[in-house]
Amino acid sequence: MDALKTDLYQLTMAAGYFHRGMASRTATCEMFVRRLPEERRYLLAMGIERVIAYLTDLRFTDEQIAYLKTVPSLADAMTPEFIAYLRDFRFHGDLWAIPEGTVFFEQEPVLRITAPLIEAQLVETFVLSAVNHATMVASKAARIVLSAGEAGVVEFGTRRTHFDAAVDAARAAYAAGFASTSNVEAGMRYGIPVTGTAAHMWTMAHPTEEAAFEGYVKIFPNASILLIDTYDTLEGAKRAAAIARDKLKGVRLDSGDLATLSKGVRRILDDAGCRQAKIVASGDVNELKIAALRNAGAPIDLYGVGTDLVVSRDAPALGGVYKLVEIGEGEDRAPIAKFSEGKATLPGAHQVFRSHGPDGEITGDIIALADEHGPEGTAPLLAEIVRGGKRLAPAEPLSAIRARAKRELASLPASLRRLDGDPWTPLTPQRSTGLTRLIDEVRARVAPSHQVAKED
Amino acid sequence: MDALKTDLYQLTMAAGYFHRGMASRTATCEMFVRRLPEERRYLLAMGIERVIAYLTDLRFTDEQIAYLKTVPSLADAMTPEFIAYLRDFRFHGDLWAIPEGTVFFEQEPVLRITAPLIEAQLVETFVLSAVNHATMVASKAARIVLSAGEAGVVEFGTRRTHFDAAVDAARAAYAAGFASTSNVEAGMRYGIPVTGTAAHMWTMAHPTEEAAFEGYVKIFPNASILLIDTYDTLEGAKRAAAIARDKLKGVRLDSGDLATLSKGVRRILDDAGCRQAKIVASGDVNELKIAALRNAGAPIDLYGVGTDLVVSRDAPALGGVYKLVEIGEGEDRAPIAKFSEGKATLPGAHQVFRSHGPDGEITGDIIALADEHGPEGTAPLLAEIVRGGKRLAPAEPLSAIRARAKRELASLPASLRRLDGDPWTPLTPQRSTGLTRLIDEVRARVAPSHQVAKED
Repeated sequence: MDALKTDLYQLTMAAGYFHRGMASRTATCEMFVRRLPEERRYLLAMGIERVIAYLTDLRFTDEQIAYLKTVPSLADAMTPEFIAYLRDFRFHGDLWAIPEGTVFFEQEPVLRITAPLIEAQLVETFVLSAVNHATMVASKAARIVLSAGEAGVVEFGTRRTHFDAAVDAARAAYAAGFASTSNVEAGMRYGIPVTGTAAHMWTMAHPTEEAAFEGYVKIFPNASILLIDTYDTLEGAKRAAAIARDKLKGVRLDSGDLATLSKGVRRILDDAGCRQAKIVASGDVNELKIAALRNAGAPIDLYGVGTDLVVSRDAPALGGVYKLVEIGEGEDRAPIAKFSEGKATLPGAHQVFRSHGPDGEITGDIIALADEHGPEGTAPLLAEIVRGGKRLAPAEPLSAIRARAKRELASLPASLRRLDGDPWTPLTPQRSTGLTRLIDEVRARVAPSHQVAKED
Repeated sequence: MDALKTDLYQLTMAAGYFHRGMASRTATCEMFVRRLPEERRYLLAMGIERVIAYLTDLRFTDEQIAYLKTVPSLADAMTPEFIAYLRDFRFHGDLWAIPEGTVFFEQEPVLRITAPLIEAQLVETFVLSAVNHATMVASKAARIVLSAGEAGVVEFGTRRTHFDAAVDAARAAYAAGFASTSNVEAGMRYGIPVTGTAAHMWTMAHPTEEAAFEGYVKIFPNASILLIDTYDTLEGAKRAAAIARDKLKGVRLDSGDLATLSKGVRRILDDAGCRQAKIVASGDVNELKIAALRNAGAPIDLYGVGTDLVVSRDAPALGGVYKLVEIGEGEDRAPIAKFSEGKATLPGAHQVFRSHGPDGEITGDIIALADEHGPEGTAPLLAEIVRGGKRLAPAEPLSAIRARAKRELASLPASLRRLDGDPWTPLTPQRSTGLTRLIDEVRARVAPSHQVAKED
């Protein structure tokens, strides 16, 4: 039922290609990010699995088609032939993509679609939406995971973003290395561990904090993580230890000076024999605050992160774009490129080849033409996932994506992993000789008026 | 199917109340925004309709219940009795809310739920998610609408946010005064006008811009808004006028210096006899850029706004919270409040009374107790919408919400409508004498240790 989650112009363009007899020309489009947001040194690919489901399930229902007939600017084009086309619509194209959980950089195609022009156009908006959102959250999550080091991070952000976006944000966060989510739907849909503590409302609904803790421990003897900051955090810690004793799994602090409080709480818990109890801290936490808390020696075992993660507060939109790079088939294939300042695109279909140092560190990327071979020792990033509209292999388990993300983040050069503002060298992909030659050829062939082309 | 789009702790708390025999105590909770984001001078209420649908449809499916049994921290509490409770779950409470499209301010309850404690707790996360997201987008949209004055604004942001959030963002934008959306699903679901122009890909897929325009006009003779910036905007304008002539409905500019280009394009269109053709401008536009373009006299008829709107880029999260304000029934009702710095809440159930000047301008708000009468000449903002789990009246048409938002924005004091950084006076709600007295009473009664209470 995703078919109409798109911009109207995808449908008007589709109708246009259909009526102009251009629908079945082969087109190749690529999605890439022109420039990383200033606040990001790398991106973590995410959202591809949702794209695959979208492409392979895409259908127009009768109800949707009936609606489209009522849209004024489409009306002229909704002929019986085009309606029949929509009714029988299937995606017949190929999808190549950088696997979820892989680090990538600006200019690099995170996915490539080769399909009949009409299909390549129709899917643009949804593909961008799915990958821009999930990659934005995963890339923020990666920074948070790295900032926490040995401490774990749990995702708490559902209330601060759209209720459906929240489910996919939880998936992106878990894939990037979060330990768990509070979002139950994400747990059920994606098999992510779901965790939670207690609500302040629980404590407020009891006559005393003591009664609230006693009640909680009685109902959840094996899962007692008590929220101790409703009144006085240190008093709360003493009460939690006295009431739950060796059953106390943990306590949560949600306000105040987390560095000082966590030290005081740790001492109280240890003195009371609750060494097993973990300290969870939350409350407008982000990667910079986590780094500061760890520098201050705060004995926090788990960080709960919400708002800053799910909306990627410091870089709240990823501007990935989807561009036509080649049209036609066989001998007739023509690479498409634009040469306008700031909006240039690379002609042809591409592959990205990555090289690693002896210690496994990423040393550089090369953007090459899809039919070039990568230099000795490099590995291609994009893999074929859908061919002729059919998925080539079953969906990757989320655990595999998560394991990949962990390896990928470990392979980042130290200066890209850092959060501080010290000077750092961006990893800018190089271009292969084949690609450089093609750019020159296309530039020479293209009319001067085309050289200022822009697209969005 | 929304029941699990929530935080796990809502379910553990619900199980706790159930097993502690507290489930059916009457609780009143209110959602409010403690402080406006620095970048906002008012908020526009939105998302209430979705909350009503959620409350009245909320059910747990067998599949969802089976999943909940597998969640480790819930397992202890999933007794046959609690499972039976979930299976038969219905929301039985009352909802009062500020109608969608109404302006409101910090501290003011945008909605109030009175329900059995277990139900009031269970719904917290979804209610926050729906209202925080929609109100965030609507409040940003209102600024953009006001900045555009007589020019129209159209919503283009689907590709830069989650594909489901995009549909509700389009609704919020239209309700706030946008002329239309490009999101087709939003058009079908909410009856919003959908509009679009052409894609750059259309032009790139043709051998020349001329061929692209000719093809377009042939297919859409009555809806030709041509995208003219693919190569050279002024040349594009000449071509569009020559090809579409009196059928040219408009042209779109998506890049470059929009002030200078729009003037040049207007001249070309007028000279060619295309006075009827409108100019649409887009490309990372927001309310500040629109204001600057209007100041520069840019002859732009319609602005397309995407990213900045749908993620509310300058204030990308709204931190609305949902707090217990009263518990118990009849004589036993006890107001609940917290007095901690920065996290204080107001005891009791509330109503907001608004006064207007003779010219209709909002002159002030008073937060009062729900059973107080407002001062002469004021009007209450919150209305009862759901009683005993049943909606009291059919859903308001979106056109009525949009008309209300228009009136509301027109009634804002000039300094709140302005976008510039000149000094301005925030509209801070006053407290009624009844509320002030209750705060003092509760403060006097509450143990000192409760006076530092926090909640989140």
